[in-house]
Amino acid sequence: MKVGVYGLGRFGSFWAQLLSRSFDVYGYNRSPKPRFEAPIPLVDIDELAQCDVVFLCVAISAIEDVVSDLAPRLRPGTLVIDTCSVKVLPLRAIERHLGPEMGIIGTHPMFGPDSAKDGVSGLPLVLVNVRSSQEQYRLWRRSFAELGLRVLERTAEEHDREAAFTQGVTHLVGRLLGEMSLESSEIATLGYQKLLQVIEQTCNDPWQLFLDLQRNNPYTEEMRNAFLEASRRILEHPSLTGKPSPT
Amino acid sequence: MKVGVYGLGRFGSFWAQLLSRSFDVYGYNRSPKPRFEAPIPLVDIDELAQCDVVFLCVAISAIEDVVSDLAPRLRPGTLVIDTCSVKVLPLRAIERHLGPEMGIIGTHPMFGPDSAKDGVSGLPLVLVNVRSSQEQYRLWRRSFAELGLRVLERTAEEHDREAAFTQGVTHLVGRLLGEMSLESSEIATLGYQKLLQVIEQTCNDPWQLFLDLQRNNPYTEEMRNAFLEASRRILEHPSLTGKPSPT
Repeated sequence: MKVGVYGLGRFGSFWAQLLSRSFDVYGYNRSPKPRFEAPIPLVDIDELAQCDVVFLCVAISAIEDVVSDLAPRLRPGTLVIDTCSVKVLPLRAIERHLGPEMGIIGTHPMFGPDSAKDGVSGLPLVLVNVRSSQEQYRLWRRSFAELGLRVLERTAEEHDREAAFTQGVTHLVGRLLGEMSLESSEIATLGYQKLLQVIEQTCNDPWQLFLDLQRNNPYTEEMRNAFLEASRRILEHPSLTGKPSPT
Repeated sequence: MKVGVYGLGRFGSFWAQLLSRSFDVYGYNRSPKPRFEAPIPLVDIDELAQCDVVFLCVAISAIEDVVSDLAPRLRPGTLVIDTCSVKVLPLRAIERHLGPEMGIIGTHPMFGPDSAKDGVSGLPLVLVNVRSSQEQYRLWRRSFAELGLRVLERTAEEHDREAAFTQGVTHLVGRLLGEMSLESSEIATLGYQKLLQVIEQTCNDPWQLFLDLQRNNPYTEEMRNAFLEASRRILEHPSLTGKPSPT
């Protein structure tokens, strides 16, 4: 089975390398010189479209353009698997552009090159079955498990809600603390060291990922509002401001 | 050498137990039934005042009352060591109330029962020499090191500035996220798991510690303003709100 990876950015190169442990992997990148190296053959888009399975490793905001470009080149029976960090909107876009003769599975590997630097064993991957044969779906569920991943089956809506209040809030806190230019310190508590690790992991990801997580997940606005509300309750707490509690 | 611990709250009991590995430790608590157990003899305040060294393990906001109560009972030559999480204001209060015949050392053990649950080896302790004999100071610097702690010498001002932007910001983030009632999740990323650990560690400490860190450290207001400013820059970023950037 030939597996194609569309998009060899920071995540795509990492993902292609991981898949190449089990599959015959080919990569395609829109700009011909990928910034990140992966030990896989580079092909053009038409060769990529001949693969049995094509993984999409592009920014959430690029999914629509990429799928409409790719769709007419695919053979019937091809399975398209996205890896976006949000699921509802990208999977809807993919469904709109791919004919019913193409299979679709959604995945969200809940890790990246930083958090997986000590290996992927036990790290979570969310699996969303959009439309695929039972055989295809089971094959990939097993293949991900064989890579050591912890496979969690969700609907796209379940995923997005849970991700907004876990990954979404983590990226918000990481970017916010990153803006404060906090520094490592000899007197750092263990808790502070954990915050520094969160900053490093989230700020190493592209700014576009942060924007896409916040804008393209229907539940992150609710999360940001809850964050603001909690921020007000703490920072404007009467014991801190010395003002009497509003009645 | 007899070592007294004034205050057997959550931190004081933990601290008394740690010191009892190396010293003959006696404990005193204002309310006669301490909520936390420590395997040391309980004494009354006059017996405590007869110890060669008295550690203060009380809330920052209680330091003034405690020292003025204790001062007339101490013998000349007694060494008083505080353990407050801020240093400038409590050490000034202690200096005001103790005559020059009493020694004063400031410490800040940058850990507590939660962060030290796997042992204290390598954890930082900040040491501030206010006024003590060279012999006393060297003895305690060595004793803390022998307990496995990483001893870091600072002035009170250096400590407070560095602590505001490390421990202070960590407690702010922990309390704020605690207000959001975030939950553990199967699809948690490693970064999110770190945030949950920060919430647990900071929210397990008394609310009074949070207030004292924020109110009694002269540098935390600057930290909170930097946090608010960063929060605005991220949450009101034109790419997020869709509004044009203000010019």
